[in-house]
Amino acid sequence: MREFSIRRLDAGSPDFSSELDHLLAWESVADLQVEAAVSEILQQVKNRGDAAVIEFTNRFDRRNLQSAAEFCLGKDALQQALQRIPAESREALETAAKRVREYHQHQLQSSWQYREADGTLLGQQITPMERVGIYVPGGKASYPSSVLMNAIPAKVAGVDEIQMVVPAPDGQLNDLVLAAAAIAGVDRVFTIGGAQAVAALAYGTDSIARVDKIVGPGNIFVASAKRAVFGQVAIDMIAGPSEILVICDGKTDPDWIAMDLLSQAEHDEQAQSILLSPDADFLDAVEKSLQKLLADLPREAIASRSIADRGALILVRDIAQAIEVSNRIAPEHLEVSVDDPEQYLPQIRHAGAIFLGRYTAEALGDYCAGPNHVLPTSGTARFSSPLGVYDFQKRSSIIFCSPQGADTLGRVAATLAKGEGLDAHARSAEYRVRDTAD
Amino acid sequence: MREFSIRRLDAGSPDFSSELDHLLAWESVADLQVEAAVSEILQQVKNRGDAAVIEFTNRFDRRNLQSAAEFCLGKDALQQALQRIPAESREALETAAKRVREYHQHQLQSSWQYREADGTLLGQQITPMERVGIYVPGGKASYPSSVLMNAIPAKVAGVDEIQMVVPAPDGQLNDLVLAAAAIAGVDRVFTIGGAQAVAALAYGTDSIARVDKIVGPGNIFVASAKRAVFGQVAIDMIAGPSEILVICDGKTDPDWIAMDLLSQAEHDEQAQSILLSPDADFLDAVEKSLQKLLADLPREAIASRSIADRGALILVRDIAQAIEVSNRIAPEHLEVSVDDPEQYLPQIRHAGAIFLGRYTAEALGDYCAGPNHVLPTSGTARFSSPLGVYDFQKRSSIIFCSPQGADTLGRVAATLAKGEGLDAHARSAEYRVRDTAD
Repeated sequence: MREFSIRRLDAGSPDFSSELDHLLAWESVADLQVEAAVSEILQQVKNRGDAAVIEFTNRFDRRNLQSAAEFCLGKDALQQALQRIPAESREALETAAKRVREYHQHQLQSSWQYREADGTLLGQQITPMERVGIYVPGGKASYPSSVLMNAIPAKVAGVDEIQMVVPAPDGQLNDLVLAAAAIAGVDRVFTIGGAQAVAALAYGTDSIARVDKIVGPGNIFVASAKRAVFGQVAIDMIAGPSEILVICDGKTDPDWIAMDLLSQAEHDEQAQSILLSPDADFLDAVEKSLQKLLADLPREAIASRSIADRGALILVRDIAQAIEVSNRIAPEHLEVSVDDPEQYLPQIRHAGAIFLGRYTAEALGDYCAGPNHVLPTSGTARFSSPLGVYDFQKRSSIIFCSPQGADTLGRVAATLAKGEGLDAHARSAEYRVRDTAD
Repeated sequence: MREFSIRRLDAGSPDFSSELDHLLAWESVADLQVEAAVSEILQQVKNRGDAAVIEFTNRFDRRNLQSAAEFCLGKDALQQALQRIPAESREALETAAKRVREYHQHQLQSSWQYREADGTLLGQQITPMERVGIYVPGGKASYPSSVLMNAIPAKVAGVDEIQMVVPAPDGQLNDLVLAAAAIAGVDRVFTIGGAQAVAALAYGTDSIARVDKIVGPGNIFVASAKRAVFGQVAIDMIAGPSEILVICDGKTDPDWIAMDLLSQAEHDEQAQSILLSPDADFLDAVEKSLQKLLADLPREAIASRSIADRGALILVRDIAQAIEVSNRIAPEHLEVSVDDPEQYLPQIRHAGAIFLGRYTAEALGDYCAGPNHVLPTSGTARFSSPLGVYDFQKRSSIIFCSPQGADTLGRVAATLAKGEGLDAHARSAEYRVRDTAD
């Protein structure tokens, strides 16, 4: 085991602002070689479809595919996986799915209309997307929870067809992932991954229908491919490393808080775990707990590296200052482990998900509390939201002018159109104006 | 005047599907030289701030800026422009702004919560972004309506500060644009444009505060810069050429329909105007009207090129088939110029904005009906929406577990976490489970 260390900061120090900038600094490395490789893969799949998908999959995932049919799994294969997994896992997945479904139903948006005094009707029609694609990482890091979190909001939105891609390196597939797909209502699974899978979803091939949106996490090739097809299809945010910010008044068991920090740190070495407390003794206690608990963690190497490189224990003046710091960070996960935590909600401006109270471990939100675990990272909670039903619905404006409404509006529109030098706009509006129409 | 021509298609023809693909084919050209130039501009502004902004602005816009203060306009300058414009323009802008504001207020989303039987609280907190940037093209193509359409939804959302950039080539600024900024409640205007303006908004400089989202149309340098900073900040969709699809039963005055098609065609040569009708004689009549009306249109050269290159008159079997074709196209603007048009709304699956009835000229929606004129183009209505208040709000999930809730959820989470090999997640959840907590 390596030597334990974690950064200590004081929000009252004159250097705090620049120290915080340094702590948060993280930039996704744009890798030109990766971009060039991805661009070539996208082009090949766009031009040659399934044949290119088969070639890249055989090469990168060490498969021996002869035909496209071999990478297609239907609903029966998913159901078989569901039969094979242990009963306890199945029950846990089904409980989680039920809770995620119930929570997300609150996000459904409905069409609306209103009629003005002159009879003109205005509104917005809200409809689901037709077909979406979900990327699920394969191999060692297989996350059935990710299948639920990505597929269920689409299902609740009313998406007609959900296609999932999951690579099967050396032919290996995870039954829990397939079982989760069955529970979530995924329609078709393709055992492919990487940029070639993103390309197939974005452009379509003979076996894989083109989708309207691609969601789900992946490695740098997947992220780069998603960025490249953005515009052709919709994509979700490109995620950075996961982070947790805990605000604690010092009265929660330090082991609990330490394990919450470690649950983030064990994800990967770039993950970030930060604790803010006005109680210096508590920071000491959590530091001791971290050291103690790290020792027998299976993923100790990853977690201790993350804690040493990107973790921090920060002394604050009070909870109000902690929230100020938190708003500046705009964390993906924010735990508010204090008495009467709801009182602070109005002050919390930016956070992906807010976990209130001493009993709300962030891990509950990762799996089964109900809210989505796909959350904005790296400060993007300033401008983005958890994945939700709203990501799979879209809106069409509705305008139905009465003759009187067209008369009133036509005059205004004609004036503005002439100001912009757009005569056909003005004339088109004026045809509907009573006096000047001819 | 050039010779008039417009494509004629028949939706019943066996070749129709491929003809339609050909008609719609349009791809934004990724220009590697532009991307390289933009990348350099972004880097310079990121590293050198205002100094780089001044240099690029002097070079590209033929300005003589000596200091950053010279490109900053405060609210007083905007108010002065408002005083200078003709009363008729001011009234039209104020009427349009009032209607756009009223319509967009219907889009405001509110936080929600619900409590489960065991006391666990779940919900979502909805908050506005802090600061957004609006890009407004300058020079010849100055569109005050675009200022209203981009700024008002942000204002309705409750955004704290709205910054606008508008280039002033050769020092020229459009009073209508500045007046619209005053009416819309823009806080600060910077008379800069191009990739350097996008960079300044995305990274911040000494004079320009970093924003959370950048919206608004621009040329290929602006679009390329927005794509490059996507992720660092949020951006709106990158727009393609504008399009209109008109479905008409043949009973609207052919001059009205022709002018509606021309109002799109006059935007630019790549704009697309398509008419679908089951009445072949009506298609002939509209063709004649187009030729006649084009003749004395100030922007005849642009419009006739657009009509010849990208326009089409398409014969359909009936209105139902017209809607099928429309759903495949997913048009930015859809006019349904028929009797009792509301009956068709449930069948309309994809469209940016739907204009119902013979009196609802698309131009009314461009200026003052109320809905936004920033709409998804090039078939992206399959997965995206008009610009709206929802583009300037974001959500934070809320989870507040009762001890009983943490007990129930902790068991499920621990099972799932172990299935994913994430032990710290499992232990963090188990601390809150009653029997196994220690």
